[in-house]
Amino acid sequence: MSLRPLILVTNDDGITAPGIRKLIAIMNTIGDVVVVAPDSPQSGMGHAITIDSTLTCDKLKVDVGSQTEYKCSGTPADCVKIAIREVLDRKPDLCVSGINHGSNSSVNVIYSGTMSAAIEAGIEGIPAIGFSLLDYSWRANFDVLEKEIVKITKNVLENGLPEGVVLNVNFPKTPTFKGVKICRQARGNWEEKFDKRISPNGKEYYWLSGKFTNLDKGEDTDIWALEHNYVSVVPVQFDLTAHHFIQKLNNWDL
Amino acid sequence: MSLRPLILVTNDDGITAPGIRKLIAIMNTIGDVVVVAPDSPQSGMGHAITIDSTLTCDKLKVDVGSQTEYKCSGTPADCVKIAIREVLDRKPDLCVSGINHGSNSSVNVIYSGTMSAAIEAGIEGIPAIGFSLLDYSWRANFDVLEKEIVKITKNVLENGLPEGVVLNVNFPKTPTFKGVKICRQARGNWEEKFDKRISPNGKEYYWLSGKFTNLDKGEDTDIWALEHNYVSVVPVQFDLTAHHFIQKLNNWDL
Repeated sequence: MSLRPLILVTNDDGITAPGIRKLIAIMNTIGDVVVVAPDSPQSGMGHAITIDSTLTCDKLKVDVGSQTEYKCSGTPADCVKIAIREVLDRKPDLCVSGINHGSNSSVNVIYSGTMSAAIEAGIEGIPAIGFSLLDYSWRANFDVLEKEIVKITKNVLENGLPEGVVLNVNFPKTPTFKGVKICRQARGNWEEKFDKRISPNGKEYYWLSGKFTNLDKGEDTDIWALEHNYVSVVPVQFDLTAHHFIQKLNNWDL
Repeated sequence: MSLRPLILVTNDDGITAPGIRKLIAIMNTIGDVVVVAPDSPQSGMGHAITIDSTLTCDKLKVDVGSQTEYKCSGTPADCVKIAIREVLDRKPDLCVSGINHGSNSSVNVIYSGTMSAAIEAGIEGIPAIGFSLLDYSWRANFDVLEKEIVKITKNVLENGLPEGVVLNVNFPKTPTFKGVKICRQARGNWEEKFDKRISPNGKEYYWLSGKFTNLDKGEDTDIWALEHNYVSVVPVQFDLTAHHFIQKLNNWDL
């Protein structure tokens, strides 16, 4: 039996995305790597799972390296579920998701397929990290992230994570970031625009687009850190209970 | 201008589901109702949004009543976004989602399209409630929920909700529930089973199924309340920061 940690790698941009290829290469230096990732891009899938449809999960080899790879027809959360229940012989020591092409800071954590995979692993009691780079380009420079990703990953493997907590790591676009900041999720939202168009047969349809607005002036947020060229690390929990409001709610006339 | 509150109604089972039809009828007694709901079932969609595809949003009238109705081709979160940005003239006073056919207690809040709609409204600063009944049947008895739904809704309209908090309301299957309990989200997970099959052309595929496991012995959880025939009300937040772990994380060597 290998003494190296068993690491599950997934993402939401699809198994051929440069971000996950880099993450696989990095993880191969740390442990035994099994990849179960979507066969097509799944950005914005949030924590969707495939209930009323079938799934495929097929072994393949996308490129060189010691990893074992599977592509799955489902969402990132599906990938983690099928990896744990069907693909892997034992519970992995770590799940890493990404490197996402684009930000998952602030409220984007909620829409993020990358983070849903990490959260799904967390629900199963597996330490998990989502990595994202604030660069949507397919040719983004992932190489400069290697040292920090190794350091964060080794810290998680050595220290573990508390039950119910996973990490959301975002890298600024600059290759010369200043260091790492532990942050809270910034308060923000998307000012959506729906671009209305008319189809050739006269039917109205829309494209969703929008602009992210940071509503948070705090200097302890992920947005602040990223704007100031720090790597942001937000501990994320999936107990969504607003504990602070329970006492007040008990005074309501219900 | 109407003095009645403007209420946005949506769900994840689709605009023709009996659960939303009942919720529309109830809300018509409280305010001016606009429905923007998916044109097809969207269960398990989590907080998915439609990024790389188009959306339609068409006015229709499913049945009698004073409501205005639109069916949308997108996810529950898409429905709330397009309602706010395109359909409604002003910010609604309330958003209600459901009544879901099935439970959204415990960790199901994360996979839930019903709750993603409520959370999306919450992100936009709109007080929001998701209602679910622990009965998957299309012919579930929603009538017995009316009194409680009216009471909870009126409480939210009168008292408001703190910024960043929405309510997750689940009803036990029994029509004779004992009352309302304010709860925290129970710790639990799904023990998935992947039912492997072979297609007529020899290809392997899977159906995801599974059994929910409650890992929480607490008597202040939603699962406990529902098992003891209480209506569970969990205040839900979408700041996912695990604030309790920030200090410890600051001691890591990052």
